[in-house]
Amino acid sequence: MTISPLAPASFPDLPAIDGVTFAAAAAGVKYKDRTDVMLAVLAAGSTVAGVFTRSATRSAPVRDCQEKLGAASDGAAAILVNSGNSNAFTGKAGATAVAALANGVATATGIDTTRVFTSSTGVIGEPLPFERINAKMDELTANQSPAGIADAARAIMTTDTFPKGAAATVMIDGKPVKIAGIAKGSGMIAPDMATMLVYIFTDAQIAQPALQALVAKSNDVTFNCITVDSDTSTSDTLIMGATGASGINVEGNSDFANALHDLMQDLAHQVVKDGEGASKFVTVAVTGAASDSDARLVAMATANSPLVKTAIAGEDPNWGRIVMAVGKSGAAADRDLLTIKLGDLTLAQDGWRSPSYNEDDCAAYMKGQDIVIGIDLGLGAGQSTVWTCDLTHQYITINADYRS
Amino acid sequence: MTISPLAPASFPDLPAIDGVTFAAAAAGVKYKDRTDVMLAVLAAGSTVAGVFTRSATRSAPVRDCQEKLGAASDGAAAILVNSGNSNAFTGKAGATAVAALANGVATATGIDTTRVFTSSTGVIGEPLPFERINAKMDELTANQSPAGIADAARAIMTTDTFPKGAAATVMIDGKPVKIAGIAKGSGMIAPDMATMLVYIFTDAQIAQPALQALVAKSNDVTFNCITVDSDTSTSDTLIMGATGASGINVEGNSDFANALHDLMQDLAHQVVKDGEGASKFVTVAVTGAASDSDARLVAMATANSPLVKTAIAGEDPNWGRIVMAVGKSGAAADRDLLTIKLGDLTLAQDGWRSPSYNEDDCAAYMKGQDIVIGIDLGLGAGQSTVWTCDLTHQYITINADYRS
Repeated sequence: MTISPLAPASFPDLPAIDGVTFAAAAAGVKYKDRTDVMLAVLAAGSTVAGVFTRSATRSAPVRDCQEKLGAASDGAAAILVNSGNSNAFTGKAGATAVAALANGVATATGIDTTRVFTSSTGVIGEPLPFERINAKMDELTANQSPAGIADAARAIMTTDTFPKGAAATVMIDGKPVKIAGIAKGSGMIAPDMATMLVYIFTDAQIAQPALQALVAKSNDVTFNCITVDSDTSTSDTLIMGATGASGINVEGNSDFANALHDLMQDLAHQVVKDGEGASKFVTVAVTGAASDSDARLVAMATANSPLVKTAIAGEDPNWGRIVMAVGKSGAAADRDLLTIKLGDLTLAQDGWRSPSYNEDDCAAYMKGQDIVIGIDLGLGAGQSTVWTCDLTHQYITINADYRS
Repeated sequence: MTISPLAPASFPDLPAIDGVTFAAAAAGVKYKDRTDVMLAVLAAGSTVAGVFTRSATRSAPVRDCQEKLGAASDGAAAILVNSGNSNAFTGKAGATAVAALANGVATATGIDTTRVFTSSTGVIGEPLPFERINAKMDELTANQSPAGIADAARAIMTTDTFPKGAAATVMIDGKPVKIAGIAKGSGMIAPDMATMLVYIFTDAQIAQPALQALVAKSNDVTFNCITVDSDTSTSDTLIMGATGASGINVEGNSDFANALHDLMQDLAHQVVKDGEGASKFVTVAVTGAASDSDARLVAMATANSPLVKTAIAGEDPNWGRIVMAVGKSGAAADRDLLTIKLGDLTLAQDGWRSPSYNEDDCAAYMKGQDIVIGIDLGLGAGQSTVWTCDLTHQYITINADYRS
């Protein structure tokens, strides 16, 4: 598969996180000749938090993770992820497969099943061949290494065109606290019911409730603010583990919170940049709304509008479609107070095309790879920024192909 | 432009409606060598009702129609419609143009300006050259004819690939009451901010409030249940006029209400069948929801899902994407009670692929031009049916083309 034109030049050099080890293996769940399962093991004393898809038809592993985190205790933990099969819409057999995998990990590592979190991504509605994964459990346990995170990032890919990783080091009281994260794309691509999966690790010390709050807060303005095609996976999962091995407590530390936010935003942008058929990275920044939630409605209506997204693919500064998206969003809006910009160029203001509008300048701007749409509603202080990609022929080609 | 493969074989033979006359003219608003304006004149004693886009950025003519209908009185009326320019997002000049057109019609016909309703469809953000339309007013008045409705249907087209019309005759107390309607497509197509416009005429006698209620009720289950790409026009308009010339009062008559519903559904289906790039007509029928509104959420989430629509374009019975759409809709749903069908074929039930699922049968079904997706949620009595088309390469080609 061709690598996305928006991909970063290379996979970043992720630091080892004290207290976490990784291994990947080729279990043959569906793919041949590649790794398709990864196991991360977190040392005793770790806390784990997570956020998940809100889909009413979410998968068996998502339900299992939610239950386990609801009764969270601290201690050693394991995260097992397979690609090639999402174990979604697999009836009662879904939960059976999750339990079998958790037992497999528990037997191989000695970690309690209540601390084993699993994710699955890939085709929907097919029974997960969990025996193939359990058959690799000894290999996954034997090969555990702090440097294995890059292999883990590759093992969880489905139709991603590049592996996704990001890292940060925060100095607190003169000592480094490290964070490293990996992700796979949100594209729900045939033949797979793909999924956004994100795993973040840190050697910071932080109690579970504080970690959960931190993850949820940053998730709301990062992963919850990206959209490729408005469709929502049955399996979206973000799990973060903190080993505490640095001995530094980060609760209430804003530097740590900011670093985590930036890392999550970086991974979220990488997911968008690997959106099916993406040729442009689009930022929709809404200001001046009556409320933040209104701003989000406008931003999402714009980012999800097929007409806006095809115009961007066509490098067409078609601001009329943005006016349309504002109008249909459901947010309070007043035509005569609306300002629409592309980068620094003002296209529309005061209910009319801007007097400074210049078609050539706008057309030149649209030829860039990074497009910033600015929408000011002129009503209040509400704001929201979301990110998306354009809608191209390649999206149709990828998604209209027959599954066989 | 190639005519949609889903177009009817020919434009129907619409009956003259006693008390309504039509004319079309070529005013050169934007298009050359074709008609682009139509004037319908309704005789004294007529009542007029309408429903409009809920967009917050709706156009000047929509706002004007809404104001006039809010203060509706009975009497002669006129409907003036131009294509080529939507008079949307045109600042204060938008209302000025509407007033100038209403004055033009009033001067030529003697009808009060408060009874002149105008619509405009076409490019957004450009001043409407209303003088060109007013210059044709004498011609439009002189050429009025009961048989002119077919010409009117053609004059209001923008990027529609076929004119849309439908008619019905209802026998009440042994006497015929006639209804005839015309529409233009919902596609919001570059270079135009196109619009769904619908005009329906009858010689029935019915008071304005009863007519308004009837139109609103049928609109909710016809035009409000179609979607091409989830985008909403700034100009959507449906106006119905009843001349009373038949002398037959239809208030409370269910035969008339049913005939009007069927006519509106017919026109709504024609609009979908002219959706940009449409190659298949798709019915999404949801039953068993906790409420009708939940059923509508599921139906619309499915009909608007790019992944569902591209799968249909690819003739792929990818029911996993339908499960996904149900899950993301926001409606109450239980995986283990969900049944998904294609026509009479059951694909999924009881939280799993159906035991009767046969890939070959499903693939053969998907080759048809009419696709019926059945979703039963197994929770209650709520139901909703919506109609859409597939999402094809042609949609991208049409909408990503540069406006110039």
